[in-house]
Parts: sequence; C-alpha cells; structure tokens
Amino acid sequence: MSGKTTIYDIAKALNITAATVSRALNNNPKISQSTRKLVLETANKMNYKQNKLALALRSGKSNNVGVIVPRINTNFFASVIRGIEEGLHPEGYQVIICQTHEDEDREVENVNTLLNAQVDGIFMSISNLPKENNHYIERVIQKNIPLIFFDRKKEMKNVSSVTIDDYLASYQTTQHLIEQGCKKIAYFSGDRSLEIYEDRYRGYEQALLDNNIPINEDYIISIKSNVVEGRDAVEKLLALENPPNAIFSTSDFAALGAIQKLKEHGIKIPEDFCVFGFGNEPFTKFMELSISTIDQSPLEMGKMAAQVFLDKINNKKSESKVILSPKLLIRQSSTRIS
Amino acid sequence: MSGKTTIYDIAKALNITAATVSRALNNNPKISQSTRKLVLETANKMNYKQNKLALALRSGKSNNVGVIVPRINTNFFASVIRGIEEGLHPEGYQVIICQTHEDEDREVENVNTLLNAQVDGIFMSISNLPKENNHYIERVIQKNIPLIFFDRKKEMKNVSSVTIDDYLASYQTTQHLIEQGCKKIAYFSGDRSLEIYEDRYRGYEQALLDNNIPINEDYIISIKSNVVEGRDAVEKLLALENPPNAIFSTSDFAALGAIQKLKEHGIKIPEDFCVFGFGNEPFTKFMELSISTIDQSPLEMGKMAAQVFLDKINNKKSESKVILSPKLLIRQSSTRIS
Repeated sequence: MSGKTTIYDIAKALNITAATVSRALNNNPKISQSTRKLVLETANKMNYKQNKLALALRSGKSNNVGVIVPRINTNFFASVIRGIEEGLHPEGYQVIICQTHEDEDREVENVNTLLNAQVDGIFMSISNLPKENNHYIERVIQKNIPLIFFDRKKEMKNVSSVTIDDYLASYQTTQHLIEQGCKKIAYFSGDRSLEIYEDRYRGYEQALLDNNIPINEDYIISIKSNVVEGRDAVEKLLALENPPNAIFSTSDFAALGAIQKLKEHGIKIPEDFCVFGFGNEPFTKFMELSISTIDQSPLEMGKMAAQVFLDKINNKKSESKVILSPKLLIRQSSTRIS
Repeated sequence: MSGKTTIYDIAKALNITAATVSRALNNNPKISQSTRKLVLETANKMNYKQNKLALALRSGKSNNVGVIVPRINTNFFASVIRGIEEGLHPEGYQVIICQTHEDEDREVENVNTLLNAQVDGIFMSISNLPKENNHYIERVIQKNIPLIFFDRKKEMKNVSSVTIDDYLASYQTTQHLIEQGCKKIAYFSGDRSLEIYEDRYRGYEQALLDNNIPINEDYIISIKSNVVEGRDAVEKLLALENPPNAIFSTSDFAALGAIQKLKEHGIKIPEDFCVFGFGNEPFTKFMELSISTIDQSPLEMGKMAAQVFLDKINNKKSESKVILSPKLLIRQSSTRIS
C-alpha cells in the first residue's frame, strides 16, 4: 500500500482519532511525546507519506524561507546566509538559496521560484534593478509574504531591511587614508544605481570635501568585483599624468588585483601607495601584506534579518529598518602611521 | 478581482477556449507566438496569478532542481553549482540550493525540503553519513526523482554520480613530492568514512609503498577543512622526534594554515619543507608563495552533472557514473626541482 496510507489507516491501527494522528504528525504541542513517537513509528512502518506540500497549500505555511543573493561564493553573502540559518533553524525553518549572478531576469525568476515553492518569507540582496520594474517585488508584498532586504536594498514601503551604514564606512575610510598622508585617493565604485554604492560614493566625496580636497573625476573608476578589474583599473590610473597615491576599492577582490599590479610596477605598499578594500573577505587577512578593509558584520546581519522576519510573522513589528555600524580593519596595506 | 482571475475569465475576454489559454500560459509549442503574447498581456492586465505549485502537483513537474552541498562558501562547491546552473538554466530549470554544514540531520531535512518544493531532480554532495541510514535517499529514488551525487558520493544503485579520480590525484601528488626529494610526507586526511577521503588516502599509501617508503602513522592527521586545524596539525608534527619534511593536505585551507605556522617557525618553503593542497581555492594562486594544489574541474563537474540529469529525464541513460581526471597544479610551495 505504498504511498496510499492515510492518517485514517494509522488512526485505525492505533485505535486513536485521525485528528490525534494529524496533530502528532504536525508536532502539535498538545500531543504527548510518547503518542507522537508511537504515531511516527506506525506511520513509518505503514509507509505513510505526509504530503507536506498539500499541507502547505492548505495552511499557507511551508516552514521554508528563501534567500536570494547575487552570488554565493563570497564570504560576505555566505556568512549572511549562515546568520539567517542560525537565526531560523532553531525555529524550525529550512533555508533555500538562489543566486542571480547579478542578472535581473534571473532575479525575477528566483522570486517566482521561491513563491512557487511556497516559502514563508524572502530575504534578498538585490542585483542591479532598473527603477521601473518592481512588479515581481510587489507580487511578494501583495501575497503578504515578509520580504527583508539585506545589504543591497531598495527603499520601499512594507519592506524591511538590514544594512550597514555604508556612507559612514566610506567616510571613515577616506578620512583614514587622508590621515595617512594620501591626498590623491582613487575610488573604485560599484554600480551606483544600487543604493549601497551610491551611499559609499557620497561618503568618499564628503570626506574629501570636508578636507578641502577637490574631486578628480579621473580617479573614479567603475569596476566589477573581481581581481582582473582591479588590475586593469591600476593600469589606467598609473597612465594618468597625475596618478593617485591611494586606492579605496569598494571590492576586496579588486583591491587584491590592484595590489598585485602595483607590486608588478615596483610600487611599495604602503610606503608609496595605500590600498583599502571593502568586505573583509578572508584572503585580506591571509595575505603576506594584509589588506585593510571594512567588516560588514555579515553573520550579525543575517541573524538580525532572521529576527526581523520572526518579529514580522509574530506580529511584533510590521516593518524594521536596521542599520548596523561598519568596522574599519586597518591593516598593513594602509598603515604608514600607526 | 485581485488573485481571483481564472483562465476562464481570460478565455472569455479574448473569446478563445480555456484550453488555449492554459496552453499559452504553459508555453505549449502548439500555440502561436502572437496568441501567447496576447494571452500573457491579458493575464497580466487582469492580474491573473498562475498557481504554478498546483500545476506542479498535477503535472509532477516544477522545473526546479535542488542542490545540496556541505557548504556554499568554498570556491569548489560554488563553482559546481554554477556549472549545474549553466547546464540547466538554458533548459528552463531554476536551481535552488541548500547547505548542510556537514550535519547529517540537516542533510535529511534538506532532502525533505526539496521534495516538498517538488523539485524535478536533486544534486547532492553528501556530508558524513552513517552507513545504515539511507532511508531519506531511498525516498528520493522511490519517488523516481533523479538523484545525482557529485564529488562526495555513495555507491548506490539507481544513483548517478560525477566525481574526479581522487585516488589518482592523491597518488600523483605523493609521487610528485617524492620526486622533489621529500620522503617524510605527512598527510592531512578528511573523514575517511566518505569515499573520496578513503580514495585519497589509498592513493597516498600506494604511492609510498610503490616507492618503498614505510607508512608512518604519526604523519597521518585527521583534520577539518580550515586554517586553524592546519596550524594545529603542524604544531603536532613539529613536536615529533622525527618530523616530516612535506605535507600533503586534502584541504587548501588547512594547507594555508600549515604554511603560516611553518613560516612562524622559520622553516623555509619549499627549500626545507614542501606543502601541497587540494581543491584549487582562488587564494592558493594569489598568495605571494603560491600553493601547489589539485584542480577538481568543478565547473565541468557541475555541467556534467547537469547533462547526466538531462540524459536521465530524457530517458537517454538511466544511470551514469562519470569520473573526471584531476589536474595537478604544481606551484611554488612544492617546487624544488622544476
């Protein structure tokens, strides 16, 4: 009778009601531990398959949550996901993950995939979004499924977010580089249509202005977060008539590429040139010349996002906007004066 | 009428049959491009929500596949997942990911989560499994959902797998270290209850035997794949009366920790001591002393796994066991003689 056993068969075998069987199978706290054990054993013996999906369709609760990230293979996103898992697994939630590879269409597909999988909540760090197309996000909101942005957020009603203070991180870093004697600070920017990158740029700009250093447009280079782009950007900067003597890279990977290329040109770090990254990827610490960077507390960010979700479903808070403080990690690549 | 539009409403509005609407919404090739466009536009205007999950329950096809890995934050697993995505996304599949953190209970939960999400296939690199409990894997097989193991597999009927030749990788690495003049080769082993780690150990052992080098049990250290365990293992090895002069670590992270600790002891690499890793994590190339390692072709492994899945659902092959060749990357940390 594979696959055809019902809760009524189990109830009959144990001489209890079907309602009791159902409650036992669904971990209802009203059922004693011994009854639950008995039901589970019998269900197992009778090859009973609980159709959790049908259950989810009825109850509207799957105990799964979804996480959408640009990519899983950075320490930052992996750690946020770990934080979400640590926050939600003890509450009985399973976490399923999708990645967009920074592709907007993929992001829409991911949201639909998670909605189709009946998730109870979606955590999302958005990829590059044109401002018009929010249809798929609004679909989540309409369905009343908690949506929590982390790191890369979009300012939207009814959507919670957990971020760090990117403006402050960037302001403090630029200030630090100026204090180290660098006045010609190049800046590697991410896509400024994303709020976090716009905020970071503004922090850089304001720190320069506050120190009476004019903005040099030649020093501002738009990059993708990888080693090759960092190397290429340094080639461009060194070809300038008036090259910079510091780089603030909003990507650790690009900072690493920059350091490689600077060394190939015989430039001494930090004596001749300071470099500062962003994200505290593990390799920044492992390098023989350790790389200064900004820690975004990803584990805490994930745990906080989990808490925001729990507060929402438990009707404690309908919306939260949490902003965490950044931590500057000043290491060898930017330390002339300690 | 939010959320309540049916295909009959759309059919009525367009004066076509509900069957045509349904086919258009489900990308049936019998429907012309222009009709499909019209139906989709109208469905959108009328705020029609297709219940894909209900559809999946009826058709038994969700166009989602699941991937279960021990953890997402290593280049190896992230790259295999990318390969699976590259192989399946063009075929209309979405990939959802779960991680076990090497926890067996979590692995069981992940499988259930994916089954509940109605995935059409499961790709899995197993965590530490006791040999008895295959119940949850057998549930996948019974449901006739293609299951493809990659890297960390278990020899099972009706389960395909894509792996590299771990025995060969290990044999060749040990042989290389011997050719570099190292006869006292320590070995950092993963959990040998997993086939890949058992195969790697056998390769190391056989290469030593073939070179008439006796096995020294003191040199064999069981580690977890992280930097700290590599550092600790070196402390143990250097405390031996007869310490080794090479380490073959089945984890790049532990190899990195070993190198850090050896340097702290003033030991010169590769002159006094050779180190070889496993996995080709990106940092192994970036280090100032680049780390020799083994590339496991993760992108190809993922693409191959995707192909195995497609062959299975298209009834071309019911089972495949694919073994890829490892690639030794001999870098500075083990090159005395080039």
